[in-house]
Amino acid sequence: MKATLLHGPEDVRVEQVPDPALRVSTDAIVRVTHACICGSDLWPYRGIGLTPDGDVPAEPQRIGHEFLGVVEETGSEVNSLRQGDVVVAPFTFSDDDCEFCREGLHTSCVNGGGWGSADVDGGQGEAVRVPQAEGTLVKLPGGSDEALSASLLTLSDVFSTGHHAAVSASVGLGSTVVVVGDGAVGLSGVLASTRLGADRVIIMGRHQRRTELAEHFGATDVVPERGAEGVERIRELTGGHGASSVLECVGTADSLSTAVGAVRAGGSIGRVGAPTYENIPQPAETFLRNVTISGGVAPARNYIPKLLPDVLEGRIQPGLVFDRTLELDDISEGYRAMHEREALKVLVRP
Amino acid sequence: MKATLLHGPEDVRVEQVPDPALRVSTDAIVRVTHACICGSDLWPYRGIGLTPDGDVPAEPQRIGHEFLGVVEETGSEVNSLRQGDVVVAPFTFSDDDCEFCREGLHTSCVNGGGWGSADVDGGQGEAVRVPQAEGTLVKLPGGSDEALSASLLTLSDVFSTGHHAAVSASVGLGSTVVVVGDGAVGLSGVLASTRLGADRVIIMGRHQRRTELAEHFGATDVVPERGAEGVERIRELTGGHGASSVLECVGTADSLSTAVGAVRAGGSIGRVGAPTYENIPQPAETFLRNVTISGGVAPARNYIPKLLPDVLEGRIQPGLVFDRTLELDDISEGYRAMHEREALKVLVRP
Repeated sequence: MKATLLHGPEDVRVEQVPDPALRVSTDAIVRVTHACICGSDLWPYRGIGLTPDGDVPAEPQRIGHEFLGVVEETGSEVNSLRQGDVVVAPFTFSDDDCEFCREGLHTSCVNGGGWGSADVDGGQGEAVRVPQAEGTLVKLPGGSDEALSASLLTLSDVFSTGHHAAVSASVGLGSTVVVVGDGAVGLSGVLASTRLGADRVIIMGRHQRRTELAEHFGATDVVPERGAEGVERIRELTGGHGASSVLECVGTADSLSTAVGAVRAGGSIGRVGAPTYENIPQPAETFLRNVTISGGVAPARNYIPKLLPDVLEGRIQPGLVFDRTLELDDISEGYRAMHEREALKVLVRP
Repeated sequence: MKATLLHGPEDVRVEQVPDPALRVSTDAIVRVTHACICGSDLWPYRGIGLTPDGDVPAEPQRIGHEFLGVVEETGSEVNSLRQGDVVVAPFTFSDDDCEFCREGLHTSCVNGGGWGSADVDGGQGEAVRVPQAEGTLVKLPGGSDEALSASLLTLSDVFSTGHHAAVSASVGLGSTVVVVGDGAVGLSGVLASTRLGADRVIIMGRHQRRTELAEHFGATDVVPERGAEGVERIRELTGGHGASSVLECVGTADSLSTAVGAVRAGGSIGRVGAPTYENIPQPAETFLRNVTISGGVAPARNYIPKLLPDVLEGRIQPGLVFDRTLELDDISEGYRAMHEREALKVLVRP
């Protein structure tokens, strides 16, 4: 089959790889119908590692961790899925049964792992062997519906991650929220905050197409200023004190500093931008102001069943973050376009 | 009157200062009956600043922020207190009426401040002018009771701070807790965790007298090892994963690293040790494991009414952290003894 391989900085290729096959009885094979490129895929694409050991792999690496697909084959212990089922895969696999999964923290599953790691297929290919298939895959009750597929695909990662930012920042009814970052995760954070009942959602961003989508998703204010100037503007908009909930959706030292500046005393920062910073700054400042720093990798598998009804019933359209669709063979063009901020998020059709 | 002045590193003196007098209608004058020395007083004593601007003051500075006393005089707007009332003062003053106080975050009161700052008396003296007296002081319903006074005094700061660590780390019924630090705050954190229903409380410490008191307060395990070895021991004691709640009660880079190592994925660190570190480390590690970092300066004014009944009715004895009592004139000996870890916490009688 064909799959995407990262050869090195700015060098992504679609190549022939071995067809996936069942290895253990808890596996399933899924034919990928929809995949996409994640902002976090751009870090290794740019040569910046975010593997657990912080390195860019020396050898070509399978990549991609968001996909919808159709079950082709199941191992003998996979009872709740059958050939032909349409499924969404969260961006990590998990058994849905260990102590962490039972608490809803599927990203820390003791039998879990990530796509595109050693011996595990990446999501940007024609098919994937899914470990822990019964625990990992969520069956879509209505089967395939092309009108909904973009939004369903966002449950794999980007919308679940925006939701995690909002949950981690304690967004609820009547909240005032600042979203740092106008990428697809930030926009998802806006939609998630609105969905959770926030009264006021301030997006920090300056790309008109993106901030317009943020407003469509419920943003009440747009702050184009950055850094200290942006923080000052946030303070002005929030009675001088900042917002109780701040969603950090970028992952740089600058964006984290902005989040620290924008948060109200007693408030929370939900950080979901994969961290490229080496420290969390201003510990005395956040200490004096009792700021909580929360978040991390989103346990999408926990959130998918909770978010699915709103997508299936059309109450939210998180798939609007996709502004380009490409064939798998053209995926390097998708990386380039996202890297250059020409495209917000690219959907890929194998 | 006499009061304590910090002249410079390891130079604390009791000297004559002007008697306090009412300045505005919301003030009260309190005659101090019991005060004490805080671990955080030792930072400036050692020449390490923890004023908001990070400096040790150049001029002699009034010091002390924990006291019990008797109301001597009240301003015209102080209606709920009268001469002779026995009161406990939290370690910051606050109006108990602004948006932050109404949320229970009295340390961020818009009209609040700290003792021993410019124009405000310190607690280690014979009397104190209390700004925002009605919002700040908590009247003790039973009046003065010498048997309880040590425990009542801990509500000013040390026990309220231990409680804040536990609340910030989400300690509740059945929790597994690690307490980093066997100082008076750490021991208070043990007692607070037990009081909140924790099943298992592991204290990290190696001073026998202190760890014995920790066990008296409910600690189930003592880990004398430090650093990586200490973290390994914690992991062994907690099924390999660490504890869901970790109370950081020291404030050094080492203790914070230990806290990060000891916390379970999805868990929380409640940090109450006044931070002498410049960054919060390992942001990728805590991100991958969804660790929440919370805590800060404890809103003691919020907690005092909640903790008071257990003290008054003798269910808890947080005052056991005091292991020495000195006259005010001898306070420099108290600083020396705490600095050299000869005394755990020193009570001072003006």
